[in-house]
Formats: sequence, structure tokens, C-alpha cells
Amino acid sequence: MKILLINPNTSVEMTERMVATAQSVLAPDTELVAFTATRGFPYIASRAEAMIAGGITLEMLAEHHHGCDAAVIAAFGDPSLIAARELFELPITAMAESAMLTSCMLGERFAMLTFSRTLVAWYEDAVAVTGLNHRCAAIRVPDVSFQSVSTVQYELENEIVALAENTVREHGADVLILAGAPLTGLAQRIAHRVSVPLVDPLAAAVSQAQTLARLKPRAASAGRFARPGPKPAEGLFPPLAAWIEHRPAIGGSLTAVPAGLTS
Amino acid sequence: MKILLINPNTSVEMTERMVATAQSVLAPDTELVAFTATRGFPYIASRAEAMIAGGITLEMLAEHHHGCDAAVIAAFGDPSLIAARELFELPITAMAESAMLTSCMLGERFAMLTFSRTLVAWYEDAVAVTGLNHRCAAIRVPDVSFQSVSTVQYELENEIVALAENTVREHGADVLILAGAPLTGLAQRIAHRVSVPLVDPLAAAVSQAQTLARLKPRAASAGRFARPGPKPAEGLFPPLAAWIEHRPAIGGSLTAVPAGLTS
Amino acid sequence: MKILLINPNTSVEMTERMVATAQSVLAPDTELVAFTATRGFPYIASRAEAMIAGGITLEMLAEHHHGCDAAVIAAFGDPSLIAARELFELPITAMAESAMLTSCMLGERFAMLTFSRTLVAWYEDAVAVTGLNHRCAAIRVPDVSFQSVSTVQYELENEIVALAENTVREHGADVLILAGAPLTGLAQRIAHRVSVPLVDPLAAAVSQAQTLARLKPRAASAGRFARPGPKPAEGLFPPLAAWIEHRPAIGGSLTAVPAGLTS
Amino acid sequence: MKILLINPNTSVEMTERMVATAQSVLAPDTELVAFTATRGFPYIASRAEAMIAGGITLEMLAEHHHGCDAAVIAAFGDPSLIAARELFELPITAMAESAMLTSCMLGERFAMLTFSRTLVAWYEDAVAVTGLNHRCAAIRVPDVSFQSVSTVQYELENEIVALAENTVREHGADVLILAGAPLTGLAQRIAHRVSVPLVDPLAAAVSQAQTLARLKPRAASAGRFARPGPKPAEGLFPPLAAWIEHRPAIGGSLTAVPAGLTS
Amino acid sequence: MKILLINPNTSVEMTERMVATAQSVLAPDTELVAFTATRGFPYIASRAEAMIAGGITLEMLAEHHHGCDAAVIAAFGDPSLIAARELFELPITAMAESAMLTSCMLGERFAMLTFSRTLVAWYEDAVAVTGLNHRCAAIRVPDVSFQSVSTVQYELENEIVALAENTVREHGADVLILAGAPLTGLAQRIAHRVSVPLVDPLAAAVSQAQTLARLKPRAASAGRFARPGPKPAEGLFPPLAAWIEHRPAIGGSLTAVPAGLTS
Amino acid sequence: MKILLINPNTSVEMTERMVATAQSVLAPDTELVAFTATRGFPYIASRAEAMIAGGITLEMLAEHHHGCDAAVIAAFGDPSLIAARELFELPITAMAESAMLTSCMLGERFAMLTFSRTLVAWYEDAVAVTGLNHRCAAIRVPDVSFQSVSTVQYELENEIVALAENTVREHGADVLILAGAPLTGLAQRIAHRVSVPLVDPLAAAVSQAQTLARLKPRAASAGRFARPGPKPAEGLFPPLAAWIEHRPAIGGSLTAVPAGLTS
Repeated sequence: MKILLINPNTSVEMTERMVATAQSVLAPDTELVAFTATRGFPYIASRAEAMIAGGITLEMLAEHHHGCDAAVIAAFGDPSLIAARELFELPITAMAESAMLTSCMLGERFAMLTFSRTLVAWYEDAVAVTGLNHRCAAIRVPDVSFQSVSTVQYELENEIVALAENTVREHGADVLILAGAPLTGLAQRIAHRVSVPLVDPLAAAVSQAQTLARLKPRAASAGRFARPGPKPAEGLFPPLAAWIEHRPAIGGSLTAVPAGLTS
Repeated sequence: MKILLINPNTSVEMTERMVATAQSVLAPDTELVAFTATRGFPYIASRAEAMIAGGITLEMLAEHHHGCDAAVIAAFGDPSLIAARELFELPITAMAESAMLTSCMLGERFAMLTFSRTLVAWYEDAVAVTGLNHRCAAIRVPDVSFQSVSTVQYELENEIVALAENTVREHGADVLILAGAPLTGLAQRIAHRVSVPLVDPLAAAVSQAQTLARLKPRAASAGRFARPGPKPAEGLFPPLAAWIEHRPAIGGSLTAVPAGLTS
Repeated sequence: MKILLINPNTSVEMTERMVATAQSVLAPDTELVAFTATRGFPYIASRAEAMIAGGITLEMLAEHHHGCDAAVIAAFGDPSLIAARELFELPITAMAESAMLTSCMLGERFAMLTFSRTLVAWYEDAVAVTGLNHRCAAIRVPDVSFQSVSTVQYELENEIVALAENTVREHGADVLILAGAPLTGLAQRIAHRVSVPLVDPLAAAVSQAQTLARLKPRAASAGRFARPGPKPAEGLFPPLAAWIEHRPAIGGSLTAVPAGLTS
Repeated sequence: MKILLINPNTSVEMTERMVATAQSVLAPDTELVAFTATRGFPYIASRAEAMIAGGITLEMLAEHHHGCDAAVIAAFGDPSLIAARELFELPITAMAESAMLTSCMLGERFAMLTFSRTLVAWYEDAVAVTGLNHRCAAIRVPDVSFQSVSTVQYELENEIVALAENTVREHGADVLILAGAPLTGLAQRIAHRVSVPLVDPLAAAVSQAQTLARLKPRAASAGRFARPGPKPAEGLFPPLAAWIEHRPAIGGSLTAVPAGLTS
Repeated sequence: MKILLINPNTSVEMTERMVATAQSVLAPDTELVAFTATRGFPYIASRAEAMIAGGITLEMLAEHHHGCDAAVIAAFGDPSLIAARELFELPITAMAESAMLTSCMLGERFAMLTFSRTLVAWYEDAVAVTGLNHRCAAIRVPDVSFQSVSTVQYELENEIVALAENTVREHGADVLILAGAPLTGLAQRIAHRVSVPLVDPLAAAVSQAQTLARLKPRAASAGRFARPGPKPAEGLFPPLAAWIEHRPAIGGSLTAVPAGLTS
Repeated sequence: MKILLINPNTSVEMTERMVATAQSVLAPDTELVAFTATRGFPYIASRAEAMIAGGITLEMLAEHHHGCDAAVIAAFGDPSLIAARELFELPITAMAESAMLTSCMLGERFAMLTFSRTLVAWYEDAVAVTGLNHRCAAIRVPDVSFQSVSTVQYELENEIVALAENTVREHGADVLILAGAPLTGLAQRIAHRVSVPLVDPLAAAVSQAQTLARLKPRAASAGRFARPGPKPAEGLFPPLAAWIEHRPAIGGSLTAVPAGLTS
């Protein structure tokens, strides 16, 4: 099977770390292809940014999803997840949702640990969209600052371990999600230092994409996720407009994309 | 006071109807200015479209909000409402939220009546975002089709009146919201034929914008709606990028906007 | 338009402060008339007292509502709000409900700050009646006592500012309601010292009464707020009994009211 | 033990039926004393009426509770139940709450069957106050009218039996509450015709009052139901004012009560 | 009436304490008969143990319920309560459910105080099954260890009193449940030292069993608690298998039970 | 990896169908081993039966889990799932939970279709335990009877297809779960006849077991699913007692099991 990984952040380094982390959960028969956003933000960190990046995610899916068995939206907070499921016909997973659903099989209450207070409102939304508020014990952040999102998982490693143990004790969490794409890969490194299971959201999202691909669900032709009929769309990224208008696919070739809108 | 009305649909005729309906609720000292989207969809009708229109709404607000006392996002479903409140510093209302909050003072349970089944999932989301699920008795649609969104409120007038009475009786609604921008103005026309109060969402949103403007709340410098610090933003609509990067405002002049992205 | 303000407490000084605070939110075309209870409690502070004051509120509305476009029940906790909406036909707002609904447009989670622990259970009920429990971050009280309800807003000013900032930080509130009629007017005085928007419940209730009056909703003839048919009523305050029995209005003249029951 | 039954309706015939129905659940060592309201409504049927009757209930309790081990508020909808628990120190039960809590031990979902549509909003409130919304399958009313509340249980007997069976089948109810004081005694008469247990609210309330009296809970001196300190109260029924102001008890003698306010 | 008390723990000493505590709430016409489990755990303390003890509870009920008017499952956490109500036809109460329902008449929010952290998850489940999460303020445990479950109520007496007062103040509890069979009898001893009512779960469960027995509800022949038709059952405790297969009762004689399965 | 499948029903034919259905979702590197209960019920169909089968499930896991990477409890309704996760240290999935969590990635609201009304209460419990009530649109059953659980999926095939389409239309389901072990394999056969994705619970549970095994979560040493310390256990199935008492494993050899208790 072929899994498409869409990173709606513009950081190529982050995409590389994601691909590396995914290796440990790929089945022998899985191929993973990954793309990085070419416009937007280096690292999405608010709901306004997620709204903008959501549009970019749809652009990237429109351009790259052909021929894939499932797709992963590789940002915790899941920009455009619902919109993407409405618009496209292949199974799609995302980091926050996959982490939460997987956690539900490892504990009764999960908590999220992340690295910046500004992310919390966005992650609260992700919990609410999944409808798992009553299973979310807390969303917590260490009381220390850091220098860079690309090194934050090393800078705060000890603080996150301490916060993990405190969250188990004080908030009754049975399982912990290391939330936010910059923490990708950290779970594997600190699992032995924490007394409950840790969930790496990228690993969970890639695992669940494989699960859905293997179950081969039919695309809905009714219900909330049936693909809408053709609609006129003005001034949008051409491959996305083509998909929305049910015209032949545009994409696969970056040179076809007008300057300033490349994805 | 000066109220900004942003129509994220591309239909100028719809904006004109909104402005006409707003007249009946403007206080003597209120000025209303209105703008229509120049890219996107003639009429937003799904969550994927709302996601895309959400980005366009932010672009329009970035360009036009300077000097206004409050803004109205004039689409039922409230594209980008939360993102806009996070990004901008003036009070912002939107049609679905204002209609629901206003309804809560006129009845214990409200219901929404709209004209197309495809809109229901989007409106369900709006109810959930407002947290008023327990006060929403139903979201209902007549079982008849129509020819055009610009005439739908005339085509389905009798069906909506019948559905209104049925919803009061069968679903226990005390107040009814005529949901969806194309129904703007209908409430006033059919109020005498329905046995409970009707809420016109555009009138409610303009009313609530005046309420907020008169209360003069300070802009938050903490909490979920504090304006984020400057962030680098690549490949975005210039006035929006300028606002996000905390650079001097771009906007007010359509000639400054690159072709294909005018809002 | 003409707005009726009913203060179900017996303190005339409090009514005067309410009227003064309302000035800043009155539209140019709004007239405000205010009445103070003549029996009951100087300051309602429990649910038993609110139950008794609720009956008195209905008496006052029965006597004074004729010719008004909307009414405000000017006690936080909203005695008899639902009963009043059931019984009378003009739009009615109240301080707690209006403060909460208005807050929902200024932040995702509101908190209430008040001045006495004994009030908390009553205010919790108001949150539950509005159905906004999930948006209420906390109801908090400073840990200091005060001398008099008429000066409490000056006595505790600094403590309330400190509690406000703490509530934003510790409870995740985006907007704060200064709860309880004795705090009327405080929001305006301390807004510049608090980092999130403050809502003055009296100002919100008068604003929302104007909103409803301007929307001119029809009176319900079906649903929970349709006026009940005539009922025999024995031993009640004459203007209220007359309204309940659908007899010609009694009231408007204080000399018509029997001793011991004047309102 | 001595149980006080307060009927806040003015119908003496209804009180007599209540006392008769209570006999079957009195333990050998229980004495029951009952009082009927002398002002208010023959039969409380709305939330406005319940608000007014709530004040009357407090008046009756103030006058009659001395020397009793527990009290029953004998109206379904439970006027003033919370206020009474706040104000008085003996255990107090009421018909709706007792019926629901008892039902929870006989089935997973209960439904209420009553005889008039106008009662439903009031009973919905009772469910919400108890916090058992998720266990309430439905509140239902036969589609037939009746002549008099004093004979309604005979007039609608067959319709209620049919509605009972339908509610089990269609709404998944495991146990049924015959809601509304005028149905007192009906459960016993039709139990053999219905396939699930029936709960008679008066019998349940008297049973639970005995349960509480036997458990001998101490009166709270902290928490929501601690008796408030003395408060000045103007223009209220003298025995109630005396209790609120912590003055020596007035009551037990009807001749002490001013005309027009007798309870 | 005759009440059956089933202790699914294997501690006879605990059963004796239960019977002693029950005396204070028995009506003059009530007879109590009690049985202790003969296999399983001395003291059930986890959900795995409750699952196993649940099967044993059904075995004990199958053997002993004939001729009784109601039964009490005398373990807090209520092993097999729902299953027992499904299978048997007499009214059945249990300690956690009865304590919670009774508490709802004594306060708005109850809290549970217990003696070991390992019990909390099991008690959380009991709250969820009853559907009273919103009325449960907290489940708390003193931060001290103890020597033996048979003396824990004496060892931790002072710590529980201190925790009680703290829980009223910090968690807003109006009534406290002393949770866990080893605390049976403690409420009566410390009631005068705590400022809110205490509920003894065993006393509550025996009281509610009497309430149900006196109400004489008919056994359901429809709904979730209708007795299932005969089913083949292999390898089960003979009296239970007989009841499930609708064969003549086996039981009443311990000598009839095969070694290793005695209950 | 090695996945253990535990069928707590006594039907070997059912286990064989489960193993056959699982083939389509096994990764190339997965080995599946399956066991059938040797005592209990041919087909668990109530909560009382699930309580008894829950104990049997723990016995089977105690005997067979050694050396496996994850286990599947192969009954819809998930007997003993929480207890098993508490007691054992390998990841464990079950049919209802896996089906629901998987459905959450394929639609916003799922519905369950099953074949017998008596199953509904049990499945409702499974939804509640997972905390997904708000995402469950309905649990439905065709209005026709059938001859045998082993052929029911063929007997009712057309009725289930019709019910599926009706449930999408009338209840707003986006994805459908074919609930109950006897329907294993049906989804694959009728997928092309239904307009939304179908989830086969057995396939979902085996998929999710592989997901968990690949993520290699550490066993919890804190939180709700930490293995309890050694406890004395009397009269239990020897391999289960050994595991609970932390004694060397008994099992793997059927000859070690006393007659009448073999699993």
C-alpha cells in the first residue's frame, strides 16, 4: 500500500524527522511518500494559522493524493481534516485524532504534553472535534521557555519527563500524548523514563492510515463525507479548483503551479 | 459607530440584500460598510468550502478592518470566526453565533430551518462551537428542491412556514432561526404566519455587533484571543501577511492587490 | 424605544447606580424607566431569597410593564426570568444571562468574579439554566471580607483586579464577568488594569434589551413562552392576579396597592 | 417518626388523595401530617405558577415544620425544593425528585407520563435540576383532552396504559413515572396492565422522606444547604420572616396570620 | 418484609459489621438475612476483582434470593448490579448507587471519601453507571497508608475527618459518602465532627431496599430488566445455571455445591 | 508479531469464521492464534451473560497470553476489556471499541446495526464505556426474526442492507458498524450495496491489535492500568489465580485444568 504524508508546515527538516519516525511502524508492504508545504508558516502555532494552513493542506492533497491508498495530515491540531474527508475519497488520518483514538486503547484518560502555551487552545479544539473531552485529563506545558522548535524536544526533554510523571499523579492520566509535530520521535527516546505508555502522534497517524488502507472502506456516496458535486471556484490554487469543479486533475508537476502559490 | 460587514461569498446581490435587511436594526448613530469577496465561491455550502472561505475572510478583514468599531462575518456557519477573533483586535460577530445567542433570550430551545441538506453538517458544527447543543431542538430542511439560491427564500416560502409550525409542534422549538445567508430578510416577511419568534441571523449579527461596539470591551492581551506576536508568513495575501508579521498595514486600495487574489 | 428596569432588591441607592451605569450603553433613541422593590430583601443573596424575590419580580412586572418595549430584571442570578418570559409578552433580559451570552462573543471561556461565597450556588444555577457550563471556567471570590454591599466594589477593588489576573492565568478565562448587582459600574473603572475584556452585567442586560426591542420579535402563541390562558389565583398581589386571570390591568398607581404588599 | 406533607396547591381533595395513597408505604412507626395551601392556585401548572407557589411552600414550611423528622413537598415539579433545603434544617423530599431517584433503581431509563402538554416544560426543568437528563427517555402526554384535574386519572386511564406500553417500545423506557399530583394513586390501579414497573411519585416521596428520617443526617453547617444567617426581610408572611430573621417561631396558629396571606 | 444481604467479599467479619450497622435503619417489620462469599477475594479492590466477584454475586443471588422481598449487594462499586437486575425479579440495591441517590436528596454535590488510591477507578465507574458525574464533586483518599482493611476505619479516622472538612471547602461538596465496605459504621461515629451530612453506603443500601420492597414494583416483562428466556449454560455454578436455564431452583443447601465452587 | 484471539463464546464455528475474516487485514509479518471458550454460553447475548463470560475471558487470557504481542477479545460488547487491561500487560483490543474508534476516522456519526433487540442494552453500555455517545447516531435492529445465530448474517442480509440505507437517511449516520460476532464477514459481502463505509468489528479489532503491537507501548506501572500487586484468590481457575497471586504461570497445557473449568 502507498501512504501519502502531507506536512502543512514549510519546514523540510520537520518532514524528514517525520519520515524517520514513521519507519518503526511501517508494515513490510507499506510505501510512504511525503510532501512539505511551500507557502504558509514554518510552524503552525495558532488557530488563525491553522485556518490558513487548512486551505494549503487542501491544495496539497488536491495535487498529490492521486494513486495513494490513504493520507496523513502531519500536523497536530489536524488542519482541514474534516474538510479533507469531505472533499477527497481516500481514507485520511491526522496526528491529534490518531493519537487520541489510539490512546483510548491504552488507558481510560489521556493527557497531552506540549511545549508552548499558545498551542493549547488549538489542541483543545482538536479534543472537542473528536468528542473525547471526557477522556482528556489535561493539556499541559512545562513552565520553561525554549530556543527553537527544531530543538525543543531536546531542550525540554527532562522537563517533559518530570511533567509526565506529575500529570499521571495529579491529573489521573493513564497514557500520555506528546503533542505537536516538533516532538515527533521523542516518545521513543523517553519511554523508559515514564511510568505510563507514551503515544507519538506521527507514529499513531501513520499506523492508523495503514489500518484504514488495509480495511479498504468504500468511499461514501451519502452522509457527511460524500464528495460534493462540482462547484464553480474562482481564484483558487488550480489543482484544488480542478478537483472542486470535477475537472481533470492538475498536479504532480510543480512547474504547473503559478508563483506565490506553490505547494 | 462604524460597523464593517464582510460577505465571504462572491455574490454582490447577496451583500446588497444584507445591507437592506440591516437597516431595520441600525441605531441612529451607526454607519455600516460592506464588502464582497472577490475570490472563492458564489455561495459557500460545505465545510471544505467554509475552510477555503475562512482564509478569504481573514484576507478581507486584514484589508478592511482599520478604523471600524466592530465587524460582522456575514455567512451563516461563521467561517473563520474564532481565527478572526484571535488575529484581530476589534469585536467580531457572525451570523450563526449571533442568531443562536439572541435566540437564547427568546426561547429555551431554538431550531434552525434552512433550505438544503448539504448545509446541515456545517451548521451542526456552528452549534457545537457555540456549545449550545442542548438548546438546539433540530436543524431542518423542507423536502423540496429549488432553482436558485438568489430566489430560494421566495420559492420555498410556504414550505418554510409549514416546516416552522411543524418544528414547534414536533421538536419543541420555542424560537426559530432562518439559517443561511440566502434567507436574509425572510423572517420579517413571514413573522406574522408563524406562532413563535423568528430570528434573522443577519439582523442578529448586526445588532450584536452594535452591542459589542457600545460596550467598548478592551482588546485582550492575554487568554485565547490575545493577538499573537509577529510571525513570518510566506506566500499569503499581502495585507494579511503584513498584519500577521506586524508590519504597516497594506490595504484600502484595491490596486495594491495582485491579480487573482483580490478580495 | 422604552426599556423597563426592575430592581427586585429594596435598595434605591442600587437602582440609582444601575441607571447611571446604563447611560453609557443607551442608544440615542432609548428611554429607560426604573423601579425598586418595596418589599423583600435589601440585597438578595441566596436561592431561598431569590425564590421569594422571584414572586416580587413578577408583581413588579405585572404592575409596570404596560407600554414598554423590553424589560430588564436587574439582579444577577435572574430571579423569575423564565417565569416572567412565560407570563409576559414583551422581551425580557436579565443580568446573568445577558452577561454570559455577551461574553460568549468576547472569549471562549468566561469566568465570574464576585464578592461573597454565599452567592456562588445561586450563580452556578444561572450558568446551568443558560446551558453554558462548558464555557464557564470558574466562579471565584476574593478571600477577604467587606463591610457593606453598597461599598464592596471600592473595598475589594484591588483584590478583584488581582483575582482577575489570576483567573485568566490559572483557569484559562478569556473574558471576566463582574457578577452581582453591587459590582455594577466597577468594570468601567478597572478595565485598564485587567488583561482581558470585562463584562458589566447591568450594561450587558440593558444592551441586550435594546437588541431585542430593535429586532421586534413577535410574542409567542405556541412553545414554552406562550402566555398561559386565564387561571384563578387567590391571595396574590392584585395587579399580578389580574394579569394571570386575564382581567383588565391594575397598577401604575402606588396608592392602589394594599399595605404590606407594595412593590 | 413524624413526616410533614405540604401540598402547595389549594385543593383539599388532592391532599386527601395524597394521604390515602401514602398509607401503603408508611412503616408501622411513621406518623403523617398534611397541610393544604390557602392561597395560590387550585392546581399549579406552569413555571410562573410554580415560582409563585414556591414562595407559598416556604411560608407553609416556616409555619409547620417544627417538631417534624422530615418533610414532603407534595407537588410534582418540586416548587422551592432547593430553596427549602437551603432554609430549613430537616430532610425534605419532593415528588419529581423522589420519583426519578427511585426509578433509577428499577430501570436504566425512566419516562414520565402526564396528562397535559403545558406541564412538560416544568417537568423538563425538574429532570435538569436532578441532573438525570441522560436517564430520562421521554416525557409524554396522551393526545386527548380531559374535563377536570380531579377526575383526569379516571378519564385518561386507558390512554395512559396505551401510552405506557408505547413508551416502553418506542422510547426504550424501563420504568415509568406517572407524573403530576392529579395522577396520585393511579399507579397502584393500573400496574397489572403495564409491562414495566410504575412509580407513584407521592408514594416515592413519602418513602424517601422516611428513608432520610431513618438515616438521621446531621443538618449542614457548611456547603450549599447550610442555613443562612439572619437577614432583614420586609413585607413577608410573618412566620417566614421570623425564620429568615432567626426570631422566635411564629405559627401553628392560623389566627396569627393576616387576612389574604393565610397558608 | 425480608431483605437479603449478599457480601461478595469472603470476609465474615465484614458481613457481621454490615449487619450491625443495618440495625439502625431497619423498620420494625423488616427481617435481614446475610450471606458471605465462600470463594473470591477477602476484599475486592479493583475492577478485575469486581469482574470476577460479579460472577460470584450472581451465584449467591441464584442460590439465596428465593422468598426475599429485596436484595442488597453489599460491596461499594456494586459488582454485577445491572446484570443481577437483568437476571432476577426482586428489587436489588447496592452500596454505591444507593449512597449516591440518597446523597442527591441531602446536597447538590456529593463527594466520596475512601482509604486507598487503587479503589478510585472502580468508584469512578460506579458514578458513571449511575449517570451522576455532574453531581460528584470529587473522589478523595487520605495521603496515609494503613495496616489492615478490617481496622482501617479506626486507623484513618482523624485523617478522614480532616479530609472531609477539606473536601467541603475545596471541592464544594455538600454531602460526603464514606466509600468502601471497610468504612461501614464509621459515618455514625464521626458525624458530629463533620460540618455536612455523611452517608453510610450500607445503611443507605438497606434503607433503599426497604423503600423498594414497600413500593412493591412489578417485575418487568419488557425493557432492559425483563428476565431473559431460558439459555443453555455450560460449566457454571449449578444454582446459577438452573436459574439461567429456567430449571427448578437448586440451592439453599451448601452441601449441594461442588468443591471449589462453593458460594 | 503474534496476535492472540480469544473467543469467549463456546462456538468453535464462530472462531473459525473470525479467523477467516481476519486474514484480509493481517500484515505479512503477523501470526494469529485463536482460542474458543470451553465453558459459558454458545453466544453471549445479555449483560448478565457478559458478566459471566467476562470472568471466563480473564481465565482464557491468563492461560494463553504468554508470548503474544497483543490480544483481541473477540466478542462485540467487549466482555472484561477494562478488567483485562488492568490485569495483563500486553495491549488488548476488543470488537466494539475497535469498531467505534475506527469508525471515528471514517465519519462523524456512526450507527450500529445488529440482529436482535436483546443485544441493544449491552451495546449501549459499550458506547458509554468508550465515551462516544455523542458520535453514535443509533443502534438499530431489523424488525424480522431469524432461525440461528450461525446463519443470521445470510438470513437477514437484505434486511440489513435496507436498514443500513434507512439509517444513513433517517439518523444521519456516516459510517455503519455491523455489530455482533455472528455478523463477522458480512461487511465485505455487502459493502457494494451500501452508500457509506461499513466497519467489520472483528477486522477492526485485529487491525487495531496490530497497530498497538507495532507501536510497542510500555506496560503501565502507574495509572488505572498498572498491574495490581499480588492478591490472595480463593476458588478461582488455577491459571488465573496464579497470575493474580503473582505465582509462576500455569497454563498452556489443557491437561492441567480441572474438569468443568477448561478454557
